[in-house]
This record gives sequence, C-alpha cells and structure tokens, in this order.
Amino acid sequence: MSHLTSPLAVPFPDMPAISGAVPRIARAGYKAWGRCDLTYVELAEGTAVAGVFTRNICCSSEVEIGRENVARGSARALVVNAGNSNAFTGYRGREAVEQIMQQVAEHLDCLPGDVFVSSTGVIGVPLPKDKAREGLDRVFGAQPCSWEDAANTIGTTDTFAKGAMASAIVDGKRIEIAGIVKGSGMIAPDMSTMLGYVFTDADVAPAFLQQCLSAANAEAFNCITVDSDTSTSDTVLAFATAQAGNKQLASFDDPGADAFAAALRDVCRQLAHLVVRDGEGATKFISVSVSGAISDESARKVGLAVANSPLVKTAIAGEDANWGRVVMAVGKAGEPADRDRLSIGFGGIWAAREGQPLPDYDEEPVAKHLKRSEVSIEIDLGLGQGSSTVWTCDLTHGYISINADYRS
Amino acid sequence: MSHLTSPLAVPFPDMPAISGAVPRIARAGYKAWGRCDLTYVELAEGTAVAGVFTRNICCSSEVEIGRENVARGSARALVVNAGNSNAFTGYRGREAVEQIMQQVAEHLDCLPGDVFVSSTGVIGVPLPKDKAREGLDRVFGAQPCSWEDAANTIGTTDTFAKGAMASAIVDGKRIEIAGIVKGSGMIAPDMSTMLGYVFTDADVAPAFLQQCLSAANAEAFNCITVDSDTSTSDTVLAFATAQAGNKQLASFDDPGADAFAAALRDVCRQLAHLVVRDGEGATKFISVSVSGAISDESARKVGLAVANSPLVKTAIAGEDANWGRVVMAVGKAGEPADRDRLSIGFGGIWAAREGQPLPDYDEEPVAKHLKRSEVSIEIDLGLGQGSSTVWTCDLTHGYISINADYRS
Repeated sequence: MSHLTSPLAVPFPDMPAISGAVPRIARAGYKAWGRCDLTYVELAEGTAVAGVFTRNICCSSEVEIGRENVARGSARALVVNAGNSNAFTGYRGREAVEQIMQQVAEHLDCLPGDVFVSSTGVIGVPLPKDKAREGLDRVFGAQPCSWEDAANTIGTTDTFAKGAMASAIVDGKRIEIAGIVKGSGMIAPDMSTMLGYVFTDADVAPAFLQQCLSAANAEAFNCITVDSDTSTSDTVLAFATAQAGNKQLASFDDPGADAFAAALRDVCRQLAHLVVRDGEGATKFISVSVSGAISDESARKVGLAVANSPLVKTAIAGEDANWGRVVMAVGKAGEPADRDRLSIGFGGIWAAREGQPLPDYDEEPVAKHLKRSEVSIEIDLGLGQGSSTVWTCDLTHGYISINADYRS
Repeated sequence: MSHLTSPLAVPFPDMPAISGAVPRIARAGYKAWGRCDLTYVELAEGTAVAGVFTRNICCSSEVEIGRENVARGSARALVVNAGNSNAFTGYRGREAVEQIMQQVAEHLDCLPGDVFVSSTGVIGVPLPKDKAREGLDRVFGAQPCSWEDAANTIGTTDTFAKGAMASAIVDGKRIEIAGIVKGSGMIAPDMSTMLGYVFTDADVAPAFLQQCLSAANAEAFNCITVDSDTSTSDTVLAFATAQAGNKQLASFDDPGADAFAAALRDVCRQLAHLVVRDGEGATKFISVSVSGAISDESARKVGLAVANSPLVKTAIAGEDANWGRVVMAVGKAGEPADRDRLSIGFGGIWAAREGQPLPDYDEEPVAKHLKRSEVSIEIDLGLGQGSSTVWTCDLTHGYISINADYRS
C-alpha cells in the first residue's frame, strides 16, 4: 500500500471464511520493500474456476496461460505476485510463470494447470525466478491469514484494502461469497490493471460459473473507468470450492441459481466500485446514468465517453456544473444522439432539456450536490429505451502527482 | 489571452499581407473583459472557400451553417466571436448566427451565404444578438489590423498568438499563404475546439481548394491531440482571394498545383504543431512515430492511442522512460499488434526490441532526451509497411489547474 489513503476509502468488511479456500501471505521481495508481496490461496480438491481477462493485445504470460487453463475448469491454487507484472518479458517471463505452477503442483500433488498465477506491477522486467521460488517455500509454511491481509498483499498503488461479500440460500443451504480486488489507475473497460478474486463455498459447475461471472463482469468491471487506460494483466477469477453441500448449480433451471448469480453480481459490483473509490487522485465518486439511448450498449458507450472525458472529470474536480462539457463528450461518443433532444442533469436536477439550457435553471442546488464526495450525472438522449450506468472518479492533481512521479 | 505563456511558445512570424483579405478587430463584449473579441476579415469578390469541420454530433449552428455554405464555394467575409461558442443554444443560437450573416451581407451587398461565422468559448449560452450587432458596427469602422492582432483576438484560453505562412510559385506568379489558429484543450482528431483560418491570394477553384485542404487536414489537424476531447465548434476554413494573377488551379494537372498543395499542407502542419505547443499545461512537445503497421491508418490509430494515454503523458511529464506504458497503450489501441514483434524507443534509442527489454539497454541517454522540451517516442510494430506520426503534449498539473478552475 502506498500513498495517502483515498478520501473515498471505506472500511474493510467483516468477511466470512470460505471453506476450502485458505489464504496465506509471505514476502518474496519482488521490490526493495519490507511488505509481503506474495499471496497464496490453497483451494480444496474439486474447486471449479471461471475467469475474465484483459483484452489488451500485449497481455502478460500469466493472462495467456490463465485463459488456457480456465477452460479446463478446475483449480487447486492461486498465486499473486505484487510489484512486478512480468508483462512484456518474452520467454523469460513465461518460464517464471511455469516454474511457479510447477512448484505449487509438486507441493499439492496436482496438475500445473490447476495453479493460477497473477502478477501486477512494473511492465518489462522478468519476474525473478529465485525470489518466486524462495517466496513460495516461505508461504507454504506460513499460517493462514485473513482476507484483509490477502487484499493488502495483492495491492500495489492501492491506498486501502478492498473486499466485498454476499450470501445466498441455494438448495436450502447458505452459501458464502467473498471477494478481494486490487487496482487503481489504468482502470477502464476490459479491466485494466485490476486483479479481482471471488471465492465461494457453493458447488457450481465450471461452465455455469463462467456464465455467471461473465454476466456480472459486464455490469460491474466493464462499467468502470479511472483513466481510460487498459492494462496488460487484468484478471478476475471466480473459485467455487463446493464445500457448502448444495446440489451442484449447472444452469438457471437449478433451484437457487438465480440467487447465486445475483449474489455474485452484487459482489462484483461492490468490488468494481471500490476500485473506482481508489482511483489515483480520486476525490469524487461519479455515477454517469444514461437513458433514452437506442440500446443499452449504446448507452454504456455514451456513458464511458463522458466518464473518460478529461474535461468532464476536471470540471467535477472543480465542482463546476459545466454541462457543456458533458454535451461535448456525448457528441464525441460516436453513438446516435440528437443535440436538440439531449438533456443533461446533475444530482437529479436538469440543467438542460431537449437541447437548450433551462430558462429557470437554478445552479444553487446543483453546486451544492457537486460539493459532495458522491456525484451523479444524468443524461437523457431522448431517442429510445436503452440505458446504462457507469462509474468513474474525478481527475485531479493527485493523479498527476502519482503518475508523473511513479518510477518504472 | 489568459494564463501564463506556454513554455513551448514560439514567436509570431512576420506574416505577409494577403491581397484581398483584410482583417479588423473590435470589442463586442461577449464576456466581461476589456480585450477585443470580435474578428472580421473582409474578402475580395471572387474569393473561393473550402472547409473542414468537427465531427462532434452536438455541433454548433455555426458549424451546421458553415458546412452548408462551404459547398457553395464562395466567400466575402469571415466573422469570429471569442468568449461564447454559441453551441447547444437551439434556435436562439441559430438566430444570432443568421443575424450576423445578414448584417454583414447588407454591409458588403453580398449574399448571407458568403459570410462565414465561427464562435468559440463557453457552451450553452446563446450569443447575445445586441452585442454582436454593436460589435459589427464597430468593426466595420475599424482600421485594418495585423494577422497577429487577429490571431490574438480569436484566442480564448490560448497563451500565445499562433500564425504560420508559406509561399509558392504558381504559373510563374508568387503566391502567399497566411494562416492563423486558436485552440488549446479539447484538441483531438476531428479537431476539437480549434479554429483555423488560412488565406491565400492564389486563384484556386473551390473544389480543388477543398481537395487540398482535406488532404492537408488529414496529415495535420487530424494527427494532433491534447486531451482526446473533441469540441462542438471546430472549424478550419481556407480562403483563396484570386488576386495573385495565376491561372486558376482546378486540378493537379495544372502547373504549380503540387507546389500550392505542398505549401498549404506546410502551413496546416505548422498551425497544428502550434496548437499542441499551446496545449493546456503542456511542458513537452511529443512526437509519436509508428512504423511497421499493417497500414498508415492503423499506424495513426496506434499513435493516437499512445498520444492520448494519460499514463504515457504523465510519464513523459515526469521524464520517465516508462516504455511499459507505451506497450500498454499500443495493446489497447485495438489495432493489429504482436507483443513479441513490438519495439519501443525514445529519442531514437530502442528500449525494447521484439517484445523484450534490451539486455544492454542504457537508460542514461534516454533520460537525457526526456529532459528536453521536444521528445519523441518511436514504435515499430514489426508487421507491415504502414507508418504515421502524431503529435501531442504531456499531461501536467497545469492541465488540471486550468480545467478544474475554468468556470462554465
């Protein structure tokens, strides 16, 4: 954890233990720091896995290998290295990942393909194999730790530990879901430099777990943006340890499937919001709600154009109800829009309706709303029924300080 | 002119008078400021016009009307209002533009369609008709002014006057080209909040002038970006007064047509670079050169993805040779790229070749290069023959200060 804690930080929740998922941490020393930087989660036999990954073409070996192995559907362990993303390191980077998978496989007597590895940090420096090996030897002997310790250990530029949880009744059994996430900066659709891990004790078939995770991702991680950049390592993995004793969920026809999917979506949404709350330099949590679009996807694209606009984000930072900049951002989105049907509001108060400023527009309540730490922008395109909400943060001096000073 | 002068500013050149194009300025008082904010350029009968305009869907009435009238091919006057963009003001905004066109048409005894109007400034406030009328009455009686005065008067957040010139021999006659431009912030492809005007005494058929301007725009204004935002008012107009006495240029088959097109391209390129040099908060002028792409257009898109990346722009601001962020930006561009063929360099020195950091990479000379005010990033995709260069500036505290404090 570096930098001052985000003013938008929230306390780490009182997270449940997940039967069959045991986290441990240790210090591998990937960087010259004293903190733990290696996270290891051992998973019960029969654990199902699903995952979504960055669409950045220049992705890391971790992402390439993870994508392959998620298709197999089974997992026994998760390893997360902090301080070095191992991205853009060619065959040497790939060798480091394979060595980690091999070492854990020998320790657990499982297949290397059941071991999932993530790395986050600087790009272009091969992950040091010796430090990884010694770190794993150390973590195998470590005591189990809390989810909060794990959340702190996977973090890099994060300023607070991020976790979320939910539960549901499935087939008469209570199932628990616990999730942790890291990431600030480079957060954009397709998930950027974010690493998220969701653990549940429910018994879920891999294919259905993937279906639920992909759906949750579309409404959560793919609806947030911090700076429009997209990293080379992003990964969200879901693990189902099948310890809760429910009849395995294989489709939405199974009892409790809807409840499980809703709980998973809830956890992913919470985690996505936490990432925005830790956006580099963020002082405002901004919701951009778009309605009246020709489709939900069109609404999402318009929302992201607004949420990614430096001029909109700096206006919010300045607590300036500059709806003209919102109009500009809508207009550049490349989605169907009609200037003379467009309405813009802040905090539920319309500033402009159908292409014109309101004659009796009172900026007072809007100015009051913009002083809050949670701000909303409403956009009605007046064209159709499509709607979407995306989340972002403001663009401040803090972002510049963090990113202009960060040494590669 | 507001704010401190950009550290990348250059002196205004000694611009030639253009026979048949006479600039005047006056104060209309569109904002509560003492400066002149109305620019009027009277054009000789027989002047040809061409134009390129923003693609922002929510464009201003000025842009809508200008686009229509450029198709007519003839111009007698240019009016530029500074301090109010008149965008997103519905029928009232359109009425203001039509009133200006009518008033000038009566003054010159020409068609309203021969009068071109631009407005720049805050969005959403109808241009006050009375101030426009009184301002025009004042400017009609004003003495002709210099191009530098005109360049200063069309500016808003600009920190220095921007002009460029070139000359060519066409059909045995020397022809002059003089251009002025304003704009900082909201500068991105499709031209953002930029207003550019190019005047030549050459005799050029409207259709050929449009052909030359569109080609020049593609290599100049559409290859620059400051903050990826795209304004609602951008316009670049070219006026040819036909006073030089050359045989009219109507196609590239005409003698001197190539020389004229090259000179026009040169002026547009210079003006585009000046806009970047006045990017809000800019301290570095950055050239991003992409080679080895599958096409020139693909190279341009990759270049713009890098040039628009906040993480790359802040790294350059911090004089950090963080080529990993360049890799990230290439990967998110959505264009064909192969991580293991990708090479990245700064100032002509490769940091990474074919997907891996150079073992003997010496950051010393690169660090030295990044301390300069003119920085270059080289990207070789290693796939094909496509190449392109785009220009941008760094992202600094200055940008935040200007845009978080700017009041709508």
